[in-house]
Amino acid sequence: LDYQHVQVPFEITLWIMLASLAKIGFHLYNKLPSVVPESCLLIFVGLIMGGIIYGLNDRSPPVMDSDIFFLYLLPPIVLDAGYFMPSRPFFENIGTILLYAVVGTIWNVFGIGFSLYGICQVKAFQLQDVSLLHNLLFGSLIAAVDPVAVLAVFEEIHVNEKLHILVFGESLLNDAVTVVLYKLFRSFCEMPTIKSVDVFAGVGKFFVVGLGGVLVGLSFGFTAAFTTRFTKDIRVIEPLFVFLYSYLSYLTAEMFHLSGIVAIISCAMGMKRYVEANISLKSHTTVKYFMKMWSSVSDTLIFIFLGVSTIGENHEWNWPYICFTVIFCLIWRALGVLVLTFFVNRFHVNTITGKDQFIIAYGGLRGAICFSLVFLLPDFHRKKLFIAATTVVILFTVFIQGMTIRPLVDLLAVKRKRESAPTVGEQIHIRFLDHLLAGIEDISGHWGQYYWKDKLEYFNSKYLQKILLREYDQPKSSIVLLYEKLERKHAIELAQAGQLGHGPALPSFLCLAFLCSSSDRTVITDQKLEDTPNPDVLDNMQEILARNLYRIRRTGPAYNRHTLPGDSEPTEQAKEILILRHKSL
Amino acid sequence: LDYQHVQVPFEITLWIMLASLAKIGFHLYNKLPSVVPESCLLIFVGLIMGGIIYGLNDRSPPVMDSDIFFLYLLPPIVLDAGYFMPSRPFFENIGTILLYAVVGTIWNVFGIGFSLYGICQVKAFQLQDVSLLHNLLFGSLIAAVDPVAVLAVFEEIHVNEKLHILVFGESLLNDAVTVVLYKLFRSFCEMPTIKSVDVFAGVGKFFVVGLGGVLVGLSFGFTAAFTTRFTKDIRVIEPLFVFLYSYLSYLTAEMFHLSGIVAIISCAMGMKRYVEANISLKSHTTVKYFMKMWSSVSDTLIFIFLGVSTIGENHEWNWPYICFTVIFCLIWRALGVLVLTFFVNRFHVNTITGKDQFIIAYGGLRGAICFSLVFLLPDFHRKKLFIAATTVVILFTVFIQGMTIRPLVDLLAVKRKRESAPTVGEQIHIRFLDHLLAGIEDISGHWGQYYWKDKLEYFNSKYLQKILLREYDQPKSSIVLLYEKLERKHAIELAQAGQLGHGPALPSFLCLAFLCSSSDRTVITDQKLEDTPNPDVLDNMQEILARNLYRIRRTGPAYNRHTLPGDSEPTEQAKEILILRHKSL
Repeated sequence: LDYQHVQVPFEITLWIMLASLAKIGFHLYNKLPSVVPESCLLIFVGLIMGGIIYGLNDRSPPVMDSDIFFLYLLPPIVLDAGYFMPSRPFFENIGTILLYAVVGTIWNVFGIGFSLYGICQVKAFQLQDVSLLHNLLFGSLIAAVDPVAVLAVFEEIHVNEKLHILVFGESLLNDAVTVVLYKLFRSFCEMPTIKSVDVFAGVGKFFVVGLGGVLVGLSFGFTAAFTTRFTKDIRVIEPLFVFLYSYLSYLTAEMFHLSGIVAIISCAMGMKRYVEANISLKSHTTVKYFMKMWSSVSDTLIFIFLGVSTIGENHEWNWPYICFTVIFCLIWRALGVLVLTFFVNRFHVNTITGKDQFIIAYGGLRGAICFSLVFLLPDFHRKKLFIAATTVVILFTVFIQGMTIRPLVDLLAVKRKRESAPTVGEQIHIRFLDHLLAGIEDISGHWGQYYWKDKLEYFNSKYLQKILLREYDQPKSSIVLLYEKLERKHAIELAQAGQLGHGPALPSFLCLAFLCSSSDRTVITDQKLEDTPNPDVLDNMQEILARNLYRIRRTGPAYNRHTLPGDSEPTEQAKEILILRHKSL
Repeated sequence: LDYQHVQVPFEITLWIMLASLAKIGFHLYNKLPSVVPESCLLIFVGLIMGGIIYGLNDRSPPVMDSDIFFLYLLPPIVLDAGYFMPSRPFFENIGTILLYAVVGTIWNVFGIGFSLYGICQVKAFQLQDVSLLHNLLFGSLIAAVDPVAVLAVFEEIHVNEKLHILVFGESLLNDAVTVVLYKLFRSFCEMPTIKSVDVFAGVGKFFVVGLGGVLVGLSFGFTAAFTTRFTKDIRVIEPLFVFLYSYLSYLTAEMFHLSGIVAIISCAMGMKRYVEANISLKSHTTVKYFMKMWSSVSDTLIFIFLGVSTIGENHEWNWPYICFTVIFCLIWRALGVLVLTFFVNRFHVNTITGKDQFIIAYGGLRGAICFSLVFLLPDFHRKKLFIAATTVVILFTVFIQGMTIRPLVDLLAVKRKRESAPTVGEQIHIRFLDHLLAGIEDISGHWGQYYWKDKLEYFNSKYLQKILLREYDQPKSSIVLLYEKLERKHAIELAQAGQLGHGPALPSFLCLAFLCSSSDRTVITDQKLEDTPNPDVLDNMQEILARNLYRIRRTGPAYNRHTLPGDSEPTEQAKEILILRHKSL
């Protein structure tokens, strides 16, 4: 027996296997996942595993390595999030999302930091040795909402698309702020004196870290799209480039201390459209499925490790500090959301309702990012207290808030996501209105979102597509593609029902076997195209549509890790219409 | 800049990127890959890279780590090979393959070992200090034909299926023999005296290592199939199990010093049929594409690393020893093939021709496995000589033999692979003959391959399928499935040509948009099933066929890393037949 030799890959494979089997196990009992979020169940599995390891070895189980988390587990989840990001709601609410992510996070960091410093001044709590800087450092790591935790809970409760994107977008984009503040306070802790110039440099860094991430991401994204122009002869390695370039964008951003999360999201969003057009359909299925699979596994592993790492002797249980941390996290987030939304609602017609505000505040879950950051802290005598407080905050938000948010959403009757995809009629209306608003904004000289979207679309079709697409040749309008897709689906259904050709299918089946070896095929091919109905008219129509219509926005169902967009399309309706059409002719 | 932090994943990603870009580069110039095999080009890229690294650092570039090779690079290639193994030709020739793999490899090891020992006795060559045992150890690592190198060359020259499977099967199954002999001689080298009992134990080990590998592989394969029964609610992680279980089978076999290659191949072949039936179609596409992609990348990396590792100062250039190694490798393989084929031909009706024998002997390429094994040798004063000899043998076989084998195949007019898949008529004939032969063997009491295949099929449908398949319910005969597939394809083509419904497609398109919002759909559904043509007769017919016919064997094109089976189906013929049928009704 030579276990040493295969230990590393063997143990990694076993952990992934455990995670996958746990997932299967939950889904065997249908009732369980509908009451308790999967993330809670996974943490619970982790706690049990940790307990077993602790019991057997009589020492703390290994904690999740921060490097493993940031370098291997986080990128797949963020890549998946970026690639399947519903871009229309995201860009429509980008202002609000940025406000929550930047101002909201800073608000929370300083709010939590200063008020915890206040608590430390109470002599009875024996916390006078925790300085203001340490409290602010702790605030910077505990304030940020965690995308992994938010995704895991929000994709199960199906709130409306706007609410979903506000919380989820915030959790992704606050990474830039967290990175800056965390590193700033950490370096301040190690400096003997802090000059005012350092503080200003910190403020400047926000822009560098955020915009730098976007820049790195977009350049890798466009390079990826450009590379897939040349993969026509080796289809097998096409999916690879999507993963390689986005991972490189993440690593490059991390290397230069920029925001890796922002970089990988920009990369995914930038390349998606062009890569999709360049690679084959099967490669694209592989990309999508593999991304879903990978992020799902990463996510499962993170929650299990979170549970395992909780067990052990890394904690210092100073209850006043821990309890006040939880309370301040809740209070400052609620206040922040209230104040910021007040300003947002003054400038928008589509206001955020009180119920929505409550869910935004309540959905501010903390997760594995805080946990990894707290272990990355430099050693000092109160580190174990911070670890304990972080663990309690994470477990509180994931268990208590995660499990009660669904009943609360039901109770408050928060507007839900529409389950059906928009009809073709609606899509045409949306497109028409986009055109109209772009025109109005252009005439009135107002540089609003429709104006910029129109300009971007122009730039895209004029320059980007020519460089990045393999066969640049005015792509078909998506409405024409949709029509073709529906026709195909209809044809398949007719074939399955045996209605194709209106003759009995039985003789045709028998003749099939005999005809295969017969060679009188030449007669057929000539007949084939004779009664095609006016192909010129059809082509002409398609061309007119392709030229004059916008692309339909992807208004599919919102982001969900466990399904791929298009799985839940309402096929019934389309089918019935087509069967009606077929009958009527 | 914090390069240290991201170094490991960054460099791995960059190497993979380099490999992928090199592949794209070759395929941009169509003429290059048709003259020089890709493996040669990749080694050449590796040599250049190695030269650059050597020039910059002024020290030898890092050699390919044997652990990385055996644990991470080899398994994907072997898994791919096992999963897409054409099982009919493999099992038809299993006897011959085993004879070549076991007896042939032993013949080569002892032949090369003893004759090199003879060379060492020549005083002029200054090699008297290389003992017989060391020569045999060297023989055991240099004798084995390498599956990676064989695949890379043979999938480009398209020889007939039997010839392909003989060389490829040998290269896979000789792993068990190589493992045993290599470890045996290595432990003999370290023992003070060798007892005869050790030799007998070595012979017994062959069976343990080979059959143990099969057992480990099959048990993991069946567990994988069983697990995929329960993944209905979480389709996203289905593809994962295929990879996890096969990798675990490899690692487990390696852990117990069994043959990992044999284990992973048995696992893949054992699970394929059941997993395919259990998982969704899209999951299966993901599995297939990802496997192809992964093995393709591994293969590329192996050849590049082989090139890089060649540069440096690890070599001792004793030319007589090196030249005689190359010569003996060629001679003993040629002799072995001649002698073994003589016996094989006496017992088979379908003999192996002289031309085929030449290609089998000439196709005995050596590759990265020898290279990794020679670096794993314990340190002794002549290790650098062995490294040099191995490097020269590999480069000689890959470059000289690999580049000349295609012209030789053309020159000798070796029977090629048929490019078209068999027609339905042929498939029915093959199936009918299988049935007939099984019956004849059963009556005559001869336990031949058809008898065993029949028994296995019975056991499979009686027990295995009930345990391993999700919905066990007499699966449809593949001929019925083929019919359905052809009908679907036909329907799509009709839809694309605009012939569906024989009316102009234009008005239907316009009415589509309006109908979407209309709600008078209830009328249609009732009409839908009225004129289905005799569904009972059709069902009855399908049932009769499903019960009474064997499954069609997968007689698709033979193994090829760069394409998936089914890509090259002769759709034209099927299309024409169906269009004819449609017209005639």
